[in-house]
Amino acid sequence: MTDDARIDGRRLYTGRVINLDVDRVRFPDGSEGELEIIRHPGASAVVPFLGEATAITPQVMLIKQYRYAASRYLYEIPAGRLDAGERPEECARRELLEETGCTAAGMTFLTSMYTTPGFTDERIHLFMAEGLVPGATRREADEFMEVEMMPLWQALEMVRRGEIEDSKTALGLLLADGVRTGR
Amino acid sequence: MTDDARIDGRRLYTGRVINLDVDRVRFPDGSEGELEIIRHPGASAVVPFLGEATAITPQVMLIKQYRYAASRYLYEIPAGRLDAGERPEECARRELLEETGCTAAGMTFLTSMYTTPGFTDERIHLFMAEGLVPGATRREADEFMEVEMMPLWQALEMVRRGEIEDSKTALGLLLADGVRTGR
Repeated sequence: MTDDARIDGRRLYTGRVINLDVDRVRFPDGSEGELEIIRHPGASAVVPFLGEATAITPQVMLIKQYRYAASRYLYEIPAGRLDAGERPEECARRELLEETGCTAAGMTFLTSMYTTPGFTDERIHLFMAEGLVPGATRREADEFMEVEMMPLWQALEMVRRGEIEDSKTALGLLLADGVRTGR
Repeated sequence: MTDDARIDGRRLYTGRVINLDVDRVRFPDGSEGELEIIRHPGASAVVPFLGEATAITPQVMLIKQYRYAASRYLYEIPAGRLDAGERPEECARRELLEETGCTAAGMTFLTSMYTTPGFTDERIHLFMAEGLVPGATRREADEFMEVEMMPLWQALEMVRRGEIEDSKTALGLLLADGVRTGR
């Protein structure tokens, strides 16, 4: 069962970031139904280690970003959506540069995940960056954020205490910690 | 800066699961702009341990669920959206029962996360359940899934290898493993 599950559909909204379709779908048992689906181009996110991830006390860079959906600032890793034709790693490097002003000596792919597959096809590609080299930030007009550096252990503590509330950030930090410790 | 960031807005779509608004927003620097936002009632998800999470080889129950957004079956933990007025733990117990047919002796809160705060206010509340007692499943008409049991280490391996591609599932498994091992 692949894309031929789609019988037909209507685009109800074409937006700046997302599109909304209502599709008529054939389910695995042959029955039919309608599903709402948010089409998204996909995104990349990157856990930025200042030096090497295997340092004794590795340091990460987090961003405090104002999120209207949460009505407050959230701690996040640098991230953004894929431009047309852009490869996930390019996107991760671009977003890292735009949001922190840094380039990275090394970039390691962690995984790709569906953010919330019940209603959107958005996939996010997670990376870790090591060996940051500072430059200047180039943020978009509606991005409000500040950069904060902290030891990885502290960021992981914030995940456990619920102070990091963004899924991609929690997942990226936990996976990067697994890679560096070989778990 | 809280909800008064909203100047006004229009509801463009009222759906079965989601609603789409385009809101006029005042940003932290005082400037104004328009943002697309998917309103979602929130959801709960639960990592189901057959016995105790601290067993030597703990077993978890995963669900292979057909996801139209992914055009295939994904491995997931039991999850679903909050009914009106429902508390997150109630929802987790209900979804566990509906999707696996099991009740749980113990339920532990892990964390609450924004699934993808760039375009939706959806929050998911993650739990772990221990000591499952089997009964009968009660699935919704458009849910196509089968239950699979496996050792936690195998599920964690599948996260690392990219075979588990659902964010809440990966995050739930990693957090539950952290709780059981005291990390």
